[in-house]
Amino acid sequence: METIRLQRKVLNENDVLAAELRNRFAAAGILCLNLVSSPGSGKTTLLERTLERLREKISIGVIEGDVHTDNDARRLAGYGVPVHQIETGGACHLDAKMINRALKNLPLDGLKLLFIENIGNLVCPSSYDLGEDMKVAIVSTTEGDDKPQKYPAMFARSGVLVINKTDLLPHVDFDTQAAIGYARALNPDIRVFKLSCKTGEGIEEWCDWLLAEAEGKGA
Amino acid sequence: METIRLQRKVLNENDVLAAELRNRFAAAGILCLNLVSSPGSGKTTLLERTLERLREKISIGVIEGDVHTDNDARRLAGYGVPVHQIETGGACHLDAKMINRALKNLPLDGLKLLFIENIGNLVCPSSYDLGEDMKVAIVSTTEGDDKPQKYPAMFARSGVLVINKTDLLPHVDFDTQAAIGYARALNPDIRVFKLSCKTGEGIEEWCDWLLAEAEGKGA
Repeated sequence: METIRLQRKVLNENDVLAAELRNRFAAAGILCLNLVSSPGSGKTTLLERTLERLREKISIGVIEGDVHTDNDARRLAGYGVPVHQIETGGACHLDAKMINRALKNLPLDGLKLLFIENIGNLVCPSSYDLGEDMKVAIVSTTEGDDKPQKYPAMFARSGVLVINKTDLLPHVDFDTQAAIGYARALNPDIRVFKLSCKTGEGIEEWCDWLLAEAEGKGA
Repeated sequence: METIRLQRKVLNENDVLAAELRNRFAAAGILCLNLVSSPGSGKTTLLERTLERLREKISIGVIEGDVHTDNDARRLAGYGVPVHQIETGGACHLDAKMINRALKNLPLDGLKLLFIENIGNLVCPSSYDLGEDMKVAIVSTTEGDDKPQKYPAMFARSGVLVINKTDLLPHVDFDTQAAIGYARALNPDIRVFKLSCKTGEGIEEWCDWLLAEAEGKGA
């Protein structure tokens, strides 16, 4: 019982701080997206393709979360946008306190779009609000189409489902319509993008949507 | 501070029960392997290929862990071996208490090899001893070769690294030697298998090793 009470208290503190962050992003007209997925689903590569296309059209910042290493922040720094790495040193998710601290090193002035790349983990990050406008859940076609069934909290709480690595569809057993169906059973309004960072399929549609959402937020 | 103290207490309780389980497995001459990986790395398919080859040579049981659904237990039940599903209902890892309860539904009499398929998560399951002889960490070639660097605790605590889905190597950017090097930097003695459940590459070597280990344990 003690465990349950304590966790509830910690989550409530997180929710209070996340609400403050959400107000800050809204006041600054910044669209904030929290990218969540399994390890290796291609979050960082998707950010690379996105930065290539959008960095001259809109002001973008990135907060990178990893258990260890700053490999991903170094990859993204090459695109000339502000990037701040959070190394959790063992923790399995980002929380609002970590984002609040990160913002001391990533000034929001002028930003219109802020990506938070969460820890690769389909379970724990679903429970932590970071003040984002929405979670974007990324599933690669190599992971199996049943991931929304097996990890329902993440897909129920995400506004967008990205089905990534469509270039590998000929080589894997993945039923795209089944995956979408499982996600929509939990979350009928979830928006779906099917894309490949290798062939570029779907990247334009994804970027157009990002621009429209960011413009809507900034208006 | 309160959080840290409480977690330490919970882990110690887990360690005590895991030690009891380890004694039980040893007394019964059972080799127990705890399979850990990202979601979708192919743990269940590896078990299918393993059961096909070994079920008539050695007595095998499986404890399946999932956050939701009993899809995997139903897949494996077709192979005619005892399978018990644990649905954690949200929890991000298995713990020794769950295994202890599962053993009421999966009698150990006569078993020589027990697989525990953990929740798909490269972070949290690394902290929970289940009484296993060793953890087997599975990484698929689609996840990127840097996973040992990014999730070091899991690879430091595993006795075996399985590099799975080698059939996809021509289609992905994955440096097998780099992945092995990162794992060995953390854990010089880690045993490595490279295999494909699609083409069968490496399955025989993996199964031969399992038989030899199980015989060593039962002797």
